Amino acid sequence: VRDVAIIGSAQTKFGKLGKSNTELFCDASLRAIENANVTQKDIEALFVGNVLGGFEEGQINIGGHLVGALHLGNIPATRFEGACCSGTVAFRDAYMWVASGFYDIVLVGGMERAMVMGTPYSTRTFAMANDCKYEGTTGITFPGVFAMAARRYSKIYDVPLDKLREKMAHVSIKNHKHGALNPHAQFYQKMGNLKVEDVLNSTVVCDPLTLMDCCPFSDGAAAVVLASADIARRYTDEPIYVLGVGQGSLGHMGAQADITKPASRVFSAKNAFKQAGLGPKDVDVVEIHDCFTSAEIIASEAIGFFDWGKGADAVEAGETDIGGRPVINPSGGLMGKGHPIGATGVAQVHAIVEQIKGKAPKGNQVDPVPEIGMTDTLGGGFNTIAHTILGRSRR
Amino acid sequence: VRDVAIIGSAQTKFGKLGKSNTELFCDASLRAIENANVTQKDIEALFVGNVLGGFEEGQINIGGHLVGALHLGNIPATRFEGACCSGTVAFRDAYMWVASGFYDIVLVGGMERAMVMGTPYSTRTFAMANDCKYEGTTGITFPGVFAMAARRYSKIYDVPLDKLREKMAHVSIKNHKHGALNPHAQFYQKMGNLKVEDVLNSTVVCDPLTLMDCCPFSDGAAAVVLASADIARRYTDEPIYVLGVGQGSLGHMGAQADITKPASRVFSAKNAFKQAGLGPKDVDVVEIHDCFTSAEIIASEAIGFFDWGKGADAVEAGETDIGGRPVINPSGGLMGKGHPIGATGVAQVHAIVEQIKGKAPKGNQVDPVPEIGMTDTLGGGFNTIAHTILGRSRR
Repeated sequence: VRDVAIIGSAQTKFGKLGKSNTELFCDASLRAIENANVTQKDIEALFVGNVLGGFEEGQINIGGHLVGALHLGNIPATRFEGACCSGTVAFRDAYMWVASGFYDIVLVGGMERAMVMGTPYSTRTFAMANDCKYEGTTGITFPGVFAMAARRYSKIYDVPLDKLREKMAHVSIKNHKHGALNPHAQFYQKMGNLKVEDVLNSTVVCDPLTLMDCCPFSDGAAAVVLASADIARRYTDEPIYVLGVGQGSLGHMGAQADITKPASRVFSAKNAFKQAGLGPKDVDVVEIHDCFTSAEIIASEAIGFFDWGKGADAVEAGETDIGGRPVINPSGGLMGKGHPIGATGVAQVHAIVEQIKGKAPKGNQVDPVPEIGMTDTLGGGFNTIAHTILGRSRR
Repeated sequence: VRDVAIIGSAQTKFGKLGKSNTELFCDASLRAIENANVTQKDIEALFVGNVLGGFEEGQINIGGHLVGALHLGNIPATRFEGACCSGTVAFRDAYMWVASGFYDIVLVGGMERAMVMGTPYSTRTFAMANDCKYEGTTGITFPGVFAMAARRYSKIYDVPLDKLREKMAHVSIKNHKHGALNPHAQFYQKMGNLKVEDVLNSTVVCDPLTLMDCCPFSDGAAAVVLASADIARRYTDEPIYVLGVGQGSLGHMGAQADITKPASRVFSAKNAFKQAGLGPKDVDVVEIHDCFTSAEIIASEAIGFFDWGKGADAVEAGETDIGGRPVINPSGGLMGKGHPIGATGVAQVHAIVEQIKGKAPKGNQVDPVPEIGMTDTLGGGFNTIAHTILGRSRR
């Protein structure tokens, strides 16, 4: 397969936006198209991640409608749904259609209106990403999954739960600090100075997780323009190359040995690193799916940045903050920037693109400017996981 | 891109089945895997079309759960939703992942439980494939779309509506005749001898369409195993080659000049023919998306089998029945075989594979055994449309 580059990217502000899914997608896409120095005529196919549109807006089959709204002619449009991972699944697929040589320039994006939908209904709808027969019938929602993961982590690594909660709090503190400095973030200029006690003493959502251990639901959209690497420099002086992609699946959580070591994530990350010819030590900056504080910690281990059971210590020691390595979620992540489900994976890619270009918001930018970045996106109870590895230089 | 072959395929019986989506998908997939002479270990990625699962079963993010249920390890699984076209969108995407050289053997399938869901709720949910802002607010459902198409056809070609209804009735008569002879069809051994009056005098659904002008909702699944053409003969003596694929989009119907000439279908079919190096005259047999009698007629023109305005005469004259050319819907099509939405496109591919192998059910098989076959699948008000062209010989 041939090399592929990102030639443009953009995201809307995340938060409560009061726009339709089509409007959100067009907002992000038109800015990405402008950022890529292409026009609508250049786009040969559209790929979109969206989860809740059928439930909250009464819109399925949205791909074709987006083509109409963006005046893209009759080009193919494909909608992807892999729960919170939808955006990255769409990105990986878009990548392949260019890598194969079938298309030269494509548009990929995602959008969601989870905040419009409201937290109770979003939580309930979103729990459908678990297995409806084996897990749905128990009434479990995602705070429950990651509360269980925290408890298991406490048990298998013999870290008392109150000590683990303090370590987990540092994920929230770090990501909110970054989010407060990101003008596109849902919590821009908010909660930038959390203390451990603030996280511990927040409202309990699912013991041991408090509200400050959880990401919010959000409205928002993000979009990226991909091009064959061979033509990328016609459009931009700063192409960012897709060095590797990975995706993995799991099945229901009961079928898995240990939810703190999800085999789907290990599989996906390994495949992405293999394609890129790189390893965890090569990654300067990573956007990780921090839907909960415990989620970031177990992800940082499964990807290979830290040994099993060492991720919690690493975040507490500041090793994943700006100045450490790898820097995790300098954009604010899901926790500080927001989590518009179908957009999240594409927004992670946009954040890494900005990092490698040295154009991240002040206070978010990693120094020195990163060469290699990565994204990690999780859908459901580990049953859809995908990764991208991006770099300033071609393989 | 390299050549790709279908090495195995299967479908469940269509009808009211009382199984979960996962059970339906596994039923079809395990039979396709057996038919392909491969084992689960050989499958490198899974692609699935499904539309209603979130609404009727409370299951989103189903790809990963299917990987778990089929014991496929941690391979990537991708769910596609393009309304009734979901199965063909999934097939085309699966094709590309093999054509690109990224995978050698993949599984693609689709399933639906539209009959379990019930006609009123299915119709309502399914209407969400129209644009929720411009069309949904008018209350239009799909019988309305194809009733309008019939009325417009009557007007622009100056065929009195009662005459057109008689011509349209022949679509229903032909497809039910074939479905009655197909053991996998929802209407097996039923309605094999309809007369024009039976169609005209059936219950009115949306004037001028009667119940016999409409396909049913159905439960069912279908699956196909794809392999690189270079290795296909290790597994089967009868590989069927994917010669071309196409996909097109439209946007909402109000943006289109004439819904009897959908630009998305013209675009998609042209691209599929171009890739295959073939034209409409080369096609021996085709499975067309006959969700309504008027739908088959306008599709037969847009693909290029007949001049604009001549498709209705062709079906009345028997030109699209077995013995004519191209034979349209010898399996019974959506009307006689059934329409389990996410499965439909994959079941169309399965039907064409059986035709080219000379293994279609007695009374369905085209004689002489076809060399070149095609599928046409429609999602929503023409806003997702896809085609495949299949053949016994490599390009």
